[in-house]
Amino acid sequence: MKRIAFLGVGIMGTPMALNLVRAGFELVVWNRTKARCRPLAELGAKVAPTPAAAVSGADVDAILYSLGEPAAVDDVVFGAEGILAGVRHGQVAVDLSTSHPEVSRRQERAFRNRGVDFLDAPVFGSVPEAETAALCIVVGGDGAALCRVRAVLGALSSAIYHMGPVGAGAAMGLIGSLIVGLQLQALAEALILGQKAGLDPRQVLEVIQLPDFRSPLFGGMGGGILKRDFRPIFSLKHMQKDADFIAQLAQQLNVPLPGSAIVREVIKAAVNQGGGDENASALIKALEVQANLVVRG
Amino acid sequence: MKRIAFLGVGIMGTPMALNLVRAGFELVVWNRTKARCRPLAELGAKVAPTPAAAVSGADVDAILYSLGEPAAVDDVVFGAEGILAGVRHGQVAVDLSTSHPEVSRRQERAFRNRGVDFLDAPVFGSVPEAETAALCIVVGGDGAALCRVRAVLGALSSAIYHMGPVGAGAAMGLIGSLIVGLQLQALAEALILGQKAGLDPRQVLEVIQLPDFRSPLFGGMGGGILKRDFRPIFSLKHMQKDADFIAQLAQQLNVPLPGSAIVREVIKAAVNQGGGDENASALIKALEVQANLVVRG
Amino acid sequence: MKRIAFLGVGIMGTPMALNLVRAGFELVVWNRTKARCRPLAELGAKVAPTPAAAVSGADVDAILYSLGEPAAVDDVVFGAEGILAGVRHGQVAVDLSTSHPEVSRRQERAFRNRGVDFLDAPVFGSVPEAETAALCIVVGGDGAALCRVRAVLGALSSAIYHMGPVGAGAAMGLIGSLIVGLQLQALAEALILGQKAGLDPRQVLEVIQLPDFRSPLFGGMGGGILKRDFRPIFSLKHMQKDADFIAQLAQQLNVPLPGSAIVREVIKAAVNQGGGDENASALIKALEVQANLVVRG
Amino acid sequence: MKRIAFLGVGIMGTPMALNLVRAGFELVVWNRTKARCRPLAELGAKVAPTPAAAVSGADVDAILYSLGEPAAVDDVVFGAEGILAGVRHGQVAVDLSTSHPEVSRRQERAFRNRGVDFLDAPVFGSVPEAETAALCIVVGGDGAALCRVRAVLGALSSAIYHMGPVGAGAAMGLIGSLIVGLQLQALAEALILGQKAGLDPRQVLEVIQLPDFRSPLFGGMGGGILKRDFRPIFSLKHMQKDADFIAQLAQQLNVPLPGSAIVREVIKAAVNQGGGDENASALIKALEVQANLVVRG
Repeated sequence: MKRIAFLGVGIMGTPMALNLVRAGFELVVWNRTKARCRPLAELGAKVAPTPAAAVSGADVDAILYSLGEPAAVDDVVFGAEGILAGVRHGQVAVDLSTSHPEVSRRQERAFRNRGVDFLDAPVFGSVPEAETAALCIVVGGDGAALCRVRAVLGALSSAIYHMGPVGAGAAMGLIGSLIVGLQLQALAEALILGQKAGLDPRQVLEVIQLPDFRSPLFGGMGGGILKRDFRPIFSLKHMQKDADFIAQLAQQLNVPLPGSAIVREVIKAAVNQGGGDENASALIKALEVQANLVVRG
Repeated sequence: MKRIAFLGVGIMGTPMALNLVRAGFELVVWNRTKARCRPLAELGAKVAPTPAAAVSGADVDAILYSLGEPAAVDDVVFGAEGILAGVRHGQVAVDLSTSHPEVSRRQERAFRNRGVDFLDAPVFGSVPEAETAALCIVVGGDGAALCRVRAVLGALSSAIYHMGPVGAGAAMGLIGSLIVGLQLQALAEALILGQKAGLDPRQVLEVIQLPDFRSPLFGGMGGGILKRDFRPIFSLKHMQKDADFIAQLAQQLNVPLPGSAIVREVIKAAVNQGGGDENASALIKALEVQANLVVRG
Repeated sequence: MKRIAFLGVGIMGTPMALNLVRAGFELVVWNRTKARCRPLAELGAKVAPTPAAAVSGADVDAILYSLGEPAAVDDVVFGAEGILAGVRHGQVAVDLSTSHPEVSRRQERAFRNRGVDFLDAPVFGSVPEAETAALCIVVGGDGAALCRVRAVLGALSSAIYHMGPVGAGAAMGLIGSLIVGLQLQALAEALILGQKAGLDPRQVLEVIQLPDFRSPLFGGMGGGILKRDFRPIFSLKHMQKDADFIAQLAQQLNVPLPGSAIVREVIKAAVNQGGGDENASALIKALEVQANLVVRG
Repeated sequence: MKRIAFLGVGIMGTPMALNLVRAGFELVVWNRTKARCRPLAELGAKVAPTPAAAVSGADVDAILYSLGEPAAVDDVVFGAEGILAGVRHGQVAVDLSTSHPEVSRRQERAFRNRGVDFLDAPVFGSVPEAETAALCIVVGGDGAALCRVRAVLGALSSAIYHMGPVGAGAAMGLIGSLIVGLQLQALAEALILGQKAGLDPRQVLEVIQLPDFRSPLFGGMGGGILKRDFRPIFSLKHMQKDADFIAQLAQQLNVPLPGSAIVREVIKAAVNQGGGDENASALIKALEVQANLVVRG
């Protein structure tokens, strides 16, 4: 493994790709918005005009991609100039997006037909973890294929878990999102109940970061809420996409998830409050309206 | 502050009382089940026959009590041989139970009439934190009264927060329980969805303890679930009591809490599955039945 | 049975009392706001200055009362000038309010001590049914006591059900309210989804009144919603009181009611939208805000 | 309009087709299980071997079909021997199934390409209404096309509503199902709370059929529940399919439907209790387990 095609160098993709460069891998990068490739080009990465072109180099060993939008897979993977149009026998394709197990399985079938191994490998962590190669990667797919790219993934993450066959990575990714949803619901209900009970929200936020029910998410998301800073790190729309996938998976497996079902409805209301392009913490806006809580900012 | 009456030396009360002894305070203890007083008696604590007797010593400065059952307050505080029947002007009474702000305010009125300061001061943390004096205490009441007992509470905890007037401690205690409820729901939904999706629950549990949505609670409660060990540390019935108080508080303040409302219904179902006297993690049993998940143990 | 004390002659009480007059009963009436007694006084009813005075006439056989506010029972029944202060051995007291079984049992104990039979007998139906003596009355209490007032209740209603001992009437009343809550939720979700799907709300409302899932409530409440007429017939605050009692009863019996639990949270949000003093159909306002639906009026 | 192809002559389709025969239409019928065509064949209907064959007669004017399974559309409409393979310019196709607006629009596009008008026209009502031509039909599609088949639909129903363009019929169908779901939830919660409160379920069921919150559904479904008769009229699996479509529609329109979201999770649990092939009233089984209610049968 020497040469890597990396597709999608946005907010998360760029620091990941930079870590690969630092680890000595040679990169071909592609991004829908070309300007975003510049920092990597300046460090020697080649910039490809299409996904197909990015992966078709004779010496590209592995293909990593991280697609924000679930719909993008139709284009970037299956499109006329998509990855599948350029792959060659013996490569390994790694989907780093949070997706649905069926999307993973659909990709695997297509890649297998072209002699390409496929792994679904969503990452946990956000920009700071991406920058410090401290992501956690949960992988579905063939163990031998994972072995082949372990060094590549190791340059991105501090923990790699092999969860099972293709689809298992995506399922684990959704399970993580399920917890994020309920943690945000807990944080929002806690802050609102506290404020209505006359407590100081800053103190509430400080206290809930101490006992054994603390979570790093409370500090990150809660701090933004108190400052009314909803600039997106992990956008509410992204969270809504995950929530929809969780609901689909729970439907297919016929698993009742009453807590997550409610969170999904709250997300809709928060998106209707204009929070879609804001940070996922904007979920609280739906509950603030319901509680008739007047907040500045 | 030298001499302390400590009432209720159960699973949590005993390690707290031991820390007071170690810190050099003289203790008078009382417990409904007398045998539970023995370890403290062996260390020199006096054992009183009734709450009234425990607090009525001429030299008792502060009264601390931790009552598992909300109904116990009627007896232990307001009863014929209760605390109020023995108090004397100038003492400080500290209710360490998780309770409802109105129960706190009712106590305050009665204590004030007898010239006794009252603080509601629920503790966050469980047996290990009680043993290592690493509890977090959230206090409602007069700042001057808190000052008087700060050294006493300092022998129990690593963090003391003054949240506001009487009732504010109880409210903060309930907010903590609200988070515990939603985290348990998240944990249960995550484990069940994972199992139905074919993932290894041990691996799911390991993974969710890494990213920023982690919580120490996941390890503690999740480990027990995987071993089907539901011996009570924080019993489901206790959690149900808190859930009822949260619902009451939300009713009084007219705050919609859809997530917590659903958790409360799930708790009922889990209690109906026989989980009431088990650990709060037995909440998962309700969802396992709904998912038709066969679990050993 | 000849002479009846009737307490509480508001929007529902007045047409009920009128039906008693028409049926030949002699009435003593009382109401907090005295002016409301006038129409009955003009028809020959005596107006009493206090509840105690109303019931203490030597010839009063039965006492009927309908209290809008649950708190009113403390005053009207248990207060210094309340019913209990005036009753006499051998009378029958009938509480027509929707209340909680425990409030019924508490009243029964007090009445029994004075030799008075007690029935809890909430009514189903609203002003038109009250006016046409077409109410449905669900009664808890002793069968013999019910026999004694059957002619009285028969002047108010077309259907009388003896549900069981004291408390059973109140429980049945709450079960009716439970259905009203979910019917309103169904109506609101149907209208909003229809509007968002581009359907004509008037047509949606017309259609849902035909199939076997139709309900008279849809026409009554739905018609008001379309005209944005939320003048109270059965106020949202009243419905919230019932929802709180339902939740309490479900807590005591440990019955999970996930649907009703969610409706209760929606009611809170609708009250926070200013709907408390409006008709119960104002519940839809909470969901309209969540759906970001702009409605005129 | 003289000759009609009718596809799908199951429990609902047969009485509808019989009404068409009675009204003087000539029928070509098709059904996956051939034996089900016999009663109609005996009355003179022609039996076709495939959907394509059924509709391809030179004199077939309209095509009506009612497909229980949403997946069946791929086969019966779009399959190699499906309807589209046999249609001819100038026919009108009417989908009587409860479906999703997008499934309707997908069909419309395919039919339009072949010069065939398409209407989505789900029916409200069950076997008795089908037998007595008392169904209610809600139609989406072109008004002129509806005019052409109005006499045909009139032989099936007492009420025909033109809701809007293609998809509007399906949307209205789902709105009806939404109400059914919440009414079943109401019925189940009412019966269980009543039973736990010590009331006689038969009496509860009788009472709730009187006031203005009544629904004919309570009698039909409730009667079966009391007799523990869950033979399917409208199966829980069918209801689950509708619930999934409702959730999809609400997702696309971003409409929070918290009540319906919870019902959907309860349905899953009831299916997990073995209720999928039973009547939709088997939804109560999920709540009975949660309430730990022992029921005979």
